[in-house]
Amino acid sequence: MPRYKLVIEYDGTPFVGWHRQANGPSVQQAVEDAVEAFAGHAVRIQIGGRTDAGVHATRQVGHVDLDKEWRTDTVRDATNAHLKPEPVSILRAEIVPDSFDALTSAQKRHYLYRILNREAPPGLDVNRVWHVSWALESLEMQAAAQTLVGRHDFTTFGAAECPADSPVCTLDRLLVTREGEEIRITASARSFVHHQVRSMVGTIALVGAGQLSVRSVREALEAKDRTRCGPMAPACGLYLIRVDY
Amino acid sequence: MPRYKLVIEYDGTPFVGWHRQANGPSVQQAVEDAVEAFAGHAVRIQIGGRTDAGVHATRQVGHVDLDKEWRTDTVRDATNAHLKPEPVSILRAEIVPDSFDALTSAQKRHYLYRILNREAPPGLDVNRVWHVSWALESLEMQAAAQTLVGRHDFTTFGAAECPADSPVCTLDRLLVTREGEEIRITASARSFVHHQVRSMVGTIALVGAGQLSVRSVREALEAKDRTRCGPMAPACGLYLIRVDY
Repeated sequence: MPRYKLVIEYDGTPFVGWHRQANGPSVQQAVEDAVEAFAGHAVRIQIGGRTDAGVHATRQVGHVDLDKEWRTDTVRDATNAHLKPEPVSILRAEIVPDSFDALTSAQKRHYLYRILNREAPPGLDVNRVWHVSWALESLEMQAAAQTLVGRHDFTTFGAAECPADSPVCTLDRLLVTREGEEIRITASARSFVHHQVRSMVGTIALVGAGQLSVRSVREALEAKDRTRCGPMAPACGLYLIRVDY
Repeated sequence: MPRYKLVIEYDGTPFVGWHRQANGPSVQQAVEDAVEAFAGHAVRIQIGGRTDAGVHATRQVGHVDLDKEWRTDTVRDATNAHLKPEPVSILRAEIVPDSFDALTSAQKRHYLYRILNREAPPGLDVNRVWHVSWALESLEMQAAAQTLVGRHDFTTFGAAECPADSPVCTLDRLLVTREGEEIRITASARSFVHHQVRSMVGTIALVGAGQLSVRSVREALEAKDRTRCGPMAPACGLYLIRVDY
């Protein structure tokens, strides 16, 4: 029963998120259906980084156990053939040891958040960026982001509905750069609390707009109080870009 | 009757092209309807670079005459408000002299063609790139492209249905570069024959795949024979990226 590691790219727009849910189509269902269609048996895929409704992935990682050994190119191409016309693509398949688990073996997750910062709305990147029409000062955002890097209790930036997860994590990197009209924020950590990246982006965007000071971001973190968080940035700007093992 | 220059971005996917046609929605109709909705009178927009069905633009340029003078920000924002939810955005509006004509004043058009060159199909860039799953050698493509630069009769690379246009034009630049999985081809000229960029891309892609020699591209050009052209590259990879005045 060989285990395959899959690297998966998807447009999150038409999905309720990676995970199967009763209220609509999920990426998980699309990929599992496609694998089942060629492998001929039921499968369950475990992934390395969760993505909510509307969130994209350029390099999601999953693992799946198949009943027989297939060539890795066949796993990729046959799954992709059955995935059509869904905006989901298997970039690579490789055989891994049974000890590999996409979720528990993951060492670090990397996310990218894209803000289109200009007056005009997107024509080409609809559902791919958060459009912010007021001016954002990216250097101020970067200064605010640095106050969040490190090991902290991220209760302020975590969704209240997840009481089981520990809110204490280490944020390795939160980097804000501007490239023309676009502000790009990359976030790296072994683990995040639910909605953490979007909550941090929403909060530091307030700093970029001059509505919040750098110091108050640090104070909000230390308050461990969800009500001190800025409004959560929309899902459509968020991309899972890498999982390290 | 002030004249406004408009810079327009759009996703060409849902449109029959810029120009109004009986067979479906056009970008022209979307923009003209939106301008008319706020200006309160009929308008006609002339543009600098034609785009066919499925072709995108990051910086299309048009001009329009309005009955009264509006603030340029108002022209942009009011048009964008009426354009929703179409994937079309007015990036900028500015007042120009009556002598400015988006079509006839244009000095140079710049197009970009994007090829996603990897085995897996696009998950995020569906309808935004031409997916070529076989290996393309971009340096060979660049060598072939250089044989097309200059003043030539481009009959081989022009659509036969446009007998009125002269097939003689000067191709100022045809540059092929690779950035990871993506091959980007930029083409610049004062004018192109119809379908020229997609025809040239389709032909040099044959060179990249080893199916055609660099020398045969030059020979095809000199033959002035449409049947010597490679298959036209699909519309979805093409972007009008700039018009110079």
